[in-house]
Amino acid sequence: MSNLFIALTHYPVINKNGDVIASAVTNLDLHDMSRVARTYGIPSFYVVTPLEDQKALVERIVLHWVEGTGARYNPKRREALERIKIKSDLEEVKNHIQSKGGEPPEVVVTSACPEDWNLSFDEFRGMLKNDRPYLLVFGTAWGLPESYMDEADYQLEPLLGVDDYNHLSVRSASAIILDRLLGSDR
Amino acid sequence: MSNLFIALTHYPVINKNGDVIASAVTNLDLHDMSRVARTYGIPSFYVVTPLEDQKALVERIVLHWVEGTGARYNPKRREALERIKIKSDLEEVKNHIQSKGGEPPEVVVTSACPEDWNLSFDEFRGMLKNDRPYLLVFGTAWGLPESYMDEADYQLEPLLGVDDYNHLSVRSASAIILDRLLGSDR
Repeated sequence: MSNLFIALTHYPVINKNGDVIASAVTNLDLHDMSRVARTYGIPSFYVVTPLEDQKALVERIVLHWVEGTGARYNPKRREALERIKIKSDLEEVKNHIQSKGGEPPEVVVTSACPEDWNLSFDEFRGMLKNDRPYLLVFGTAWGLPESYMDEADYQLEPLLGVDDYNHLSVRSASAIILDRLLGSDR
Repeated sequence: MSNLFIALTHYPVINKNGDVIASAVTNLDLHDMSRVARTYGIPSFYVVTPLEDQKALVERIVLHWVEGTGARYNPKRREALERIKIKSDLEEVKNHIQSKGGEPPEVVVTSACPEDWNLSFDEFRGMLKNDRPYLLVFGTAWGLPESYMDEADYQLEPLLGVDDYNHLSVRSASAIILDRLLGSDR
């Protein structure tokens, strides 16, 4: 198992106008990101939302695939979705990781913004050879608010394509980032 | 612009039992894969289905984001979805690429199967430095049938994680593969 954990945040995130909002959970985020987590040996994929109805929705989806008819229909989905843990906020996530391994994780936030990052993919790959836990946080909607990112230990280098277009879905971005950090093609 | 084109195939593909079927188009495949195409400079993303109602559905989605209210709401989506071209089969895709550049593409198929591949990521990165066009084909559902893959010029190395789990979504797999082929972090 990797010492890298991932979280998908639904609050606080910003909308198109820069306001802080709580976004709705997207079913395919759960499937795609948990399958990536399973592929690369990530122990837990935290789905973060303080909204009770959204937590209940995630729990219903996960239970269907982990214990319900979905688990019998497609056991490979069970292996993926059983990595999902539902938490209210970042503190709960950090406490959960600490309760497993004794140490709190260092928090690395992601952003599509080409400025203000202080951790390259290469540096992060090197750090992951340490024993300590790391938590990589992804935002939904238009991303994590600046105040949230300022409190993190590190901000990861953004993905860049051929020019300044930086509008990947969080599903695509997280898949690419985890392959860059943990993939075998290096 | 890259000399690499991509296609997402909905027929022929296989289902869980190995039968050849036509799969339904998934809205988020169009969004996620066209945004990856835009990010990495891929000129066209071909959505392949022979079913008229499915073609009409794709056309309606694309028009909403390229010319409709979606284009005004989010111009970044327009830049992505305008790369989508709807075709009935592989022949139509190859003819369209040839009509643009004069040369037919070499066809590279993808598969999660750990056997039978004959093109590594490294080799393909080298080939993409040639001038000629290449078409990378992704399958939906449980993937492309063996007979279809046998007719391709190459079969690309599969993505491997930490063990033999090979069940990424086509959205995640295509994002990772295109970053490995065209990403700057090399």
